[in-house]
Amino acid sequence: MSETRTLTDEAAALDAVDELAGRRALFALDDTVYLDGNSLGALPRHVPDRLHDVITREWGALRIRSWDESGWWTAPERIGDRIAPLVGSAPGQVVVGDSTSVNVFKAVVAATRLAATGRDEILVDAATFPTDGYIAGSAARLTGHRLVPVAPADVPDALGPRTAAVLLNHVDFRTGRLHDLPGLTAEAHAAGALAVWDLCHSAGALPVGLDAHGVDLAVGCTYKYLNGGPGSPAYLYVAERHQGAFDSPLPGWTSHADPFAMTSGYAPAEGAPRGRVGTPDILSMLALDAALDVWDGVSMAAVRAKSLALTDFFLECVGRYVPGDGLVTSVTPDAHAERGSQVSLRCADAGPVMTELVARGVVGDLRRPDVLRFGFTPLYVGFADAERAARTLAEVLADRGAGVVVGD
Amino acid sequence: MSETRTLTDEAAALDAVDELAGRRALFALDDTVYLDGNSLGALPRHVPDRLHDVITREWGALRIRSWDESGWWTAPERIGDRIAPLVGSAPGQVVVGDSTSVNVFKAVVAATRLAATGRDEILVDAATFPTDGYIAGSAARLTGHRLVPVAPADVPDALGPRTAAVLLNHVDFRTGRLHDLPGLTAEAHAAGALAVWDLCHSAGALPVGLDAHGVDLAVGCTYKYLNGGPGSPAYLYVAERHQGAFDSPLPGWTSHADPFAMTSGYAPAEGAPRGRVGTPDILSMLALDAALDVWDGVSMAAVRAKSLALTDFFLECVGRYVPGDGLVTSVTPDAHAERGSQVSLRCADAGPVMTELVARGVVGDLRRPDVLRFGFTPLYVGFADAERAARTLAEVLADRGAGVVVGD
Repeated sequence: MSETRTLTDEAAALDAVDELAGRRALFALDDTVYLDGNSLGALPRHVPDRLHDVITREWGALRIRSWDESGWWTAPERIGDRIAPLVGSAPGQVVVGDSTSVNVFKAVVAATRLAATGRDEILVDAATFPTDGYIAGSAARLTGHRLVPVAPADVPDALGPRTAAVLLNHVDFRTGRLHDLPGLTAEAHAAGALAVWDLCHSAGALPVGLDAHGVDLAVGCTYKYLNGGPGSPAYLYVAERHQGAFDSPLPGWTSHADPFAMTSGYAPAEGAPRGRVGTPDILSMLALDAALDVWDGVSMAAVRAKSLALTDFFLECVGRYVPGDGLVTSVTPDAHAERGSQVSLRCADAGPVMTELVARGVVGDLRRPDVLRFGFTPLYVGFADAERAARTLAEVLADRGAGVVVGD
Repeated sequence: MSETRTLTDEAAALDAVDELAGRRALFALDDTVYLDGNSLGALPRHVPDRLHDVITREWGALRIRSWDESGWWTAPERIGDRIAPLVGSAPGQVVVGDSTSVNVFKAVVAATRLAATGRDEILVDAATFPTDGYIAGSAARLTGHRLVPVAPADVPDALGPRTAAVLLNHVDFRTGRLHDLPGLTAEAHAAGALAVWDLCHSAGALPVGLDAHGVDLAVGCTYKYLNGGPGSPAYLYVAERHQGAFDSPLPGWTSHADPFAMTSGYAPAEGAPRGRVGTPDILSMLALDAALDVWDGVSMAAVRAKSLALTDFFLECVGRYVPGDGLVTSVTPDAHAERGSQVSLRCADAGPVMTELVARGVVGDLRRPDVLRFGFTPLYVGFADAERAARTLAEVLADRGAGVVVGD
């Protein structure tokens, strides 16, 4: 019992000095410990009212006039400029729209067209979130490149004079491993290749530094740590130096320099809007726009510090509560420099264990076959949540006959 | 004055016997004459409450659980099955998601892969809505085909042993001309080519008959006559006979046979879900889902009959109110078999004329340089609207010094 109290007390002490603790009140949360914000971020409380206004006044009353009068038409680049500082981009380089998969397609095909002639290989993270690999494979097939799956650690050796582009994940969705974006980008450039990064599992959880590290192209979703809502539109970053030669494989009419001329010849817009495709999905996009208000005044350095403290503390609690006989094994790196904002635990019977955790009010998710995944979103997850999650996990394992003894 | 009263009376008489007149009450409308439902459909009144529930309960309270418990995951094919009967498709062939442009890309690339080997040309409507041409051009470039722009009337002559696929618009966005979907599809098939149709300006306004006419692939948007909301997701139709060989250029993870296995190898799902790409944009998609309720119990034959009666009556009113000295000229065909659900009038100074029409409560739109476009959405536009629009147009022209005399 004393151990439990100790960690509970420690959690309370950590929560008491958490400078981000006040942000939790901005979200619609209950007594669930919600550790799946790395899959679907929680609802910011003000979003329903904002969407109600978009639907009833902007769509319902102004109707077609809202494309101009409510700023719908320019929403993709305007909201892109709100995401830009969260990923270390100057304005004018991020545009919102479409899904991550579609943006991966734009980025990879465009990267092959930006690359020097004669380079015929695309390297892709072999353990990537699958859509990136599938889409990169399609891009390779359509552009006549060879797709080379490679572990991120082996990218430096795999780079060569044939490499056109490298597509990598900043944080591995399964293990939570943080890859070395600055180092790998520099390696790609040294080999004469372009670096394309998928930020789905890092944006909103840690500093990314796209401009600072010279990333060429990047994509990411907005429904995880950015809390944009289920399936909210993704974004595309094209570094300013590449925008003039950015040649989209999806040159939809809203990326035209003069879309309402409706001419049969395509002339691309300048800047970030060149990455647009079709008519923007306004309801999902303006929910995201509203949701981004929760970031006003937040320092990404503070987010990162809290994220690491949370995952450290969760791992400590797991270590204390769950017997050290291999019942669970972390597959997330211990080193801070290699850790995103999630902890992934390998566990026998992970499926039923997660089902029971959810039933007891601790929501993580399962990555088949055997990974329990717990995401820590610093804007609304606290240290008491981390302690309760670890304690509940130990209780579930004990109740399943694993012989765990938990105080209290 | 007697003419005005006569047409006003005639409008009242037509409205009195309109079997669809009751549908207007389902929409949030005011005293504006809204003739731009062919660009952005009006808001069905029940949509705000439904979206509020999606946002607060499904996203806000259930969060990640809604992917299963609220049916989010299967929404693309479930909503596709609601659109299917509106375009003459049996269930299991329509999937919702992405923009029209992205679906054009899927359909055209897939069509070239379904076509017989050696066919290296893609025919595209030379007057098409521009995104279709731009995207077809990109598809041609990526697949090594030649893009051949051709007027729809010339398609039969242009078809040949090199034609892989034809991409056509069912209704021309500018003129409102209805193209011969059954005839041109049959011509394409006779030449050994596939027929891909863009239904943006016909679905919800007239019977399409995809299955009956043997269409191969089709796409369409849902924010015009289907009233799904600004930028609501588009749809893709793949005829059942082609589904097994449908080879998407955008094989995102949600089109995988077992998406949560998250394997590095791609294995496509069977059926309509094979046309999916990334994570569905749930808010926009479920607004569309709710909006489709207005179609319950509506016969598309009744919609078509009213649409033709409305455009006939509007043209009659324009003919009576606006002097016949060429102030305005209809570019929409007179023949019913060649007319969609809009009337496009060529007019000098069309830009300022439309601005003034909007200021007087008659909302159509401008298609540069000189076309006034009036869309008639049979579910909520009445004959009195058509009369008032024509009368206001005549008044605007008169006030601009065009010497029009209007009674009243």
